[in-house]
Amino acid sequence: MAIKVHGHPLSASTHRVLATLAEKELDYEFILVDLATDQHKSQAFLSLNPFGQVPFFEDGDLKLFESRAITQYLAHTFADKGTPLTAHDPKKMAIISQWTEIEAHCFYPPASKLAYELVIKPINGETKEEESVVSQLEARLAEVLDIYELHLAQSKYLGGDSFTLADLHHSAVINFLMGTKLKALFDARPHVSAWCADILARPAWKKIVAATKY
Amino acid sequence: MAIKVHGHPLSASTHRVLATLAEKELDYEFILVDLATDQHKSQAFLSLNPFGQVPFFEDGDLKLFESRAITQYLAHTFADKGTPLTAHDPKKMAIISQWTEIEAHCFYPPASKLAYELVIKPINGETKEEESVVSQLEARLAEVLDIYELHLAQSKYLGGDSFTLADLHHSAVINFLMGTKLKALFDARPHVSAWCADILARPAWKKIVAATKY
Repeated sequence: MAIKVHGHPLSASTHRVLATLAEKELDYEFILVDLATDQHKSQAFLSLNPFGQVPFFEDGDLKLFESRAITQYLAHTFADKGTPLTAHDPKKMAIISQWTEIEAHCFYPPASKLAYELVIKPINGETKEEESVVSQLEARLAEVLDIYELHLAQSKYLGGDSFTLADLHHSAVINFLMGTKLKALFDARPHVSAWCADILARPAWKKIVAATKY
Repeated sequence: MAIKVHGHPLSASTHRVLATLAEKELDYEFILVDLATDQHKSQAFLSLNPFGQVPFFEDGDLKLFESRAITQYLAHTFADKGTPLTAHDPKKMAIISQWTEIEAHCFYPPASKLAYELVIKPINGETKEEESVVSQLEARLAEVLDIYELHLAQSKYLGGDSFTLADLHHSAVINFLMGTKLKALFDARPHVSAWCADILARPAWKKIVAATKY
């Protein structure tokens, strides 16, 4: 098997890559990197990714880290296999890129910190942040979701009429937050709520949730 | 003139787009968005980019925000004009994407905050952060530069043998920091230092520095 993913079942970035592989109907080998024992900080893992983060990806002689670079590689290399996750037309591709950048720079920073606080820390038994810090993150996420609500009122998916990487990159963190009190933030916005239900109901995503049960 | 860039001369994200246009030898119209008077938070500007950030970009009927989406659009759409800033081969493109992601997620967060602290705040007369906060950011940046040093010892540019978007995305913030005490962080690492000198000496970059003198 040519494709290998070194990752962890509690890592949203790992889920992002696995969901892309599932949408592309590609087989792969999953190699667990045990974050609990700091395996990602071991010399062996740092020789794969010097930044010490999962996932690490292999496709034959290609070795790659950074989940969003991996999903882009898969979307472009296997463009005609499974779900088309990007576009050929440069202007359509630009709009998809715009929303993948928005995910990375506007949505992910508050949303992933909140997922860490409300989902991962309780699992790991780590000390929580002060309530004021959590409230600030919630307020930032709410502002982002207000903009998404206006956009999704006019566009079925973030990057246009069809599901693309721009949507898929959100699934893991949204899935974490849907099991917390912050579900209310999404439910309060009808277009955001419908979009979340849609992307989380995709068979490829459900496959990943089942495979990475925590 | 088809291409328009709405931006600000003190914005690294604006510089990123202008440098790409210069490398691609493309003409454009520059429209100043006056950040000092909060023009980017005006209803008129929010109707262009609801996230209220510069730059905003137009190429005919294409309207785009998020600087890294704009540079990608330019690199792919004008692939055969000016400097090739990306690659056709999917595996080479993946390595370039990996390093553009590293720039966005590892380099930019500490480096841009330091540039804001040491360059922009003194210009705007804003209150500085506590020294401990600045020291933490410096330590994070130093760690990233240590990894860059090892990589650049083996690769002339971040994404391979030639200058690409992965390098260009760094120029603006590095240029800001080179005028501060943090120049020492770059100078202390010979391969990083040579790479900085190389990317800042590019005629396209010098043109942008001259045009956005602050």
